Amino acid sequence: MQIVNVNLGERSYPIFIGNGLLEESLLLDPFLGQGRIVIITNDVVAPLYLERVKALLAPRECSEIILPDGESHKTLASISVIYDQLMAGKFDRQTKLIALGGGVIGDITGFVAATFQRGISFIQIPTTLLAQVDSSVGGKTGVNHPLGKNMIGAFYQPLCVLADTRVLDTLPEREIKAGLAEVIKYGLINDASFFTWLAENASQLLLLEGSTLAQAITTCCQSKANLVAVDEKEAGIRTLLNLGHTFGHAIETASGYGVWLHGETVAMGMVMAADLSMRLGWIEQTDAAKIRAVLEQNFSMSVVPPADIEIEQYLDLMSSDKKAELGKTRFVLYKAIGEAVVAGDIERQMLEQTLTAGENLCR
Amino acid sequence: MQIVNVNLGERSYPIFIGNGLLEESLLLDPFLGQGRIVIITNDVVAPLYLERVKALLAPRECSEIILPDGESHKTLASISVIYDQLMAGKFDRQTKLIALGGGVIGDITGFVAATFQRGISFIQIPTTLLAQVDSSVGGKTGVNHPLGKNMIGAFYQPLCVLADTRVLDTLPEREIKAGLAEVIKYGLINDASFFTWLAENASQLLLLEGSTLAQAITTCCQSKANLVAVDEKEAGIRTLLNLGHTFGHAIETASGYGVWLHGETVAMGMVMAADLSMRLGWIEQTDAAKIRAVLEQNFSMSVVPPADIEIEQYLDLMSSDKKAELGKTRFVLYKAIGEAVVAGDIERQMLEQTLTAGENLCR
Repeated sequence: MQIVNVNLGERSYPIFIGNGLLEESLLLDPFLGQGRIVIITNDVVAPLYLERVKALLAPRECSEIILPDGESHKTLASISVIYDQLMAGKFDRQTKLIALGGGVIGDITGFVAATFQRGISFIQIPTTLLAQVDSSVGGKTGVNHPLGKNMIGAFYQPLCVLADTRVLDTLPEREIKAGLAEVIKYGLINDASFFTWLAENASQLLLLEGSTLAQAITTCCQSKANLVAVDEKEAGIRTLLNLGHTFGHAIETASGYGVWLHGETVAMGMVMAADLSMRLGWIEQTDAAKIRAVLEQNFSMSVVPPADIEIEQYLDLMSSDKKAELGKTRFVLYKAIGEAVVAGDIERQMLEQTLTAGENLCR
Repeated sequence: MQIVNVNLGERSYPIFIGNGLLEESLLLDPFLGQGRIVIITNDVVAPLYLERVKALLAPRECSEIILPDGESHKTLASISVIYDQLMAGKFDRQTKLIALGGGVIGDITGFVAATFQRGISFIQIPTTLLAQVDSSVGGKTGVNHPLGKNMIGAFYQPLCVLADTRVLDTLPEREIKAGLAEVIKYGLINDASFFTWLAENASQLLLLEGSTLAQAITTCCQSKANLVAVDEKEAGIRTLLNLGHTFGHAIETASGYGVWLHGETVAMGMVMAADLSMRLGWIEQTDAAKIRAVLEQNFSMSVVPPADIEIEQYLDLMSSDKKAELGKTRFVLYKAIGEAVVAGDIERQMLEQTLTAGENLCR
């Protein structure tokens, strides 16, 4: 088992990473205290892992709330349903919530924890690769608004994160690839050697080879923990974790939540960012092409965005992005592979070329 | 002008208290920065003070969101309406919200600020006595759930609080008395001499005599600032500020939000707490009677709760109170006038006597 600590003073917490951790019943003991427990999960994960988690927590009694699966349910309406059930069940401030699922379940559960009775404790048990390497760590919680992704939420840290790599065995290939897009992001941001290592180990990762995967997850969690520790509320360097997300969120929102997986649009967004960086002369065409090639060839990801999103729709959605400042959209772009930077004031003509490049991205 | 500082490290902020502060255009300058401004208010306050606040902020442009007045609108639905307008207007993370109104507007605006784009800044301009002495200070934000008051919310501090005592001139007498109930609370909790001073100055306070009122408001804000500074998240001593609130919230919820003003039920609750403390033998009957007499005679407040709430309904609502721990309702009671304590495990028979005492409370 690996342990990565997120250092945030009195809000510090450990991330436990390992194979078979859902059998380790002593691991969560120090975090559970005396309160009642509510597991929040969805109708895909529940049949696979709900009983195992209940066994892990035994002899404590647990309640459960099972939501429909998918990004389209990451709404204020789902939050309201959970409030209703918690109130009807008279759950008090000592209650612990457990998020059992992917990024959607983690974000929803964290937001309920942040706001029910002005804040109760919660634990993350991420069951997707994307959640294990990214969304369960760092305290970003919230839901989507019809006009923008993750627009309603709070920074609210869990008591701990328990990432059992064995649960990834039941994950559909599409979800694995979406998670690997976020893994690659950590290389592209600030760790060129990790990017190279990922490119070399792509096939083992796609096959979920245990030790390679655990190493990748630990590297991502450590990288995220480092960024979050110095910039919890994303006033500065944490913004780099949004590489690919300005484009990606626009694609997700424009296509309708749930059509694309979040990680799939991040893959497209990271290639679009490479294309834009190339047009601005910040990186060589060969580096842009390499970024595309690793995603598209080594990892068999789709990197060309859907053709049916108009330029005006992109610009409109991106101007509502949370990174926007005083009306100007900001992007995370590249100065090199492994060196991302935040940039505003991008020339409109360059941006339009990227938005319309399609198959010619990075060429 | 008086300034009370709430000392919370990097979340510290000043409360400005004085007559005519809404004319002091330099006061808010340091807090406004470059972002856009949205004033959130209601349809009773807007005709009275919205233009004045806009003039105060000029030449900056402001937008406004005007909600219907009243506790019955302190709901997740109102929050959702505000999110929709902020998203439609493309307000970014640099936006400042201004809460212009009483406790309901302050709590709603603070919760939107806590959760829009994971947190934006806000300023409190309280226009009721209750908001000036209590709800605008200390960072409690949120909305009601049909099954319990203030059950959804967050601790989130404002940039500053601007309390212009002159705006109280337009406040209905009923609102003044509701606010004075919270003022008296500060005496009863931990300041017997303030309680005595209030009893002696009741008529000047009811007539809104300027300097007496300013002195009372400053004393309350300083008292609250002291408690909040040592216990921001209400893990301990801050709980004392809930004196009268366990009974009071139950009356508010049982009667239907908006039937009673919050402060009116706090007055009833503080007398019920005196009655229960007397039955437990913690205070003398004469002290219980004195608490009732000051509220009922000196301040002409209603102190007898509505007769149509059944014991079972009280017990049910009180068991959902946020102070409840592991299924047990907790109360703030008296060891003396000016010495409140938190108590659990109250004998059911004693509690029922208080709940059914009616006109005989404290006798």
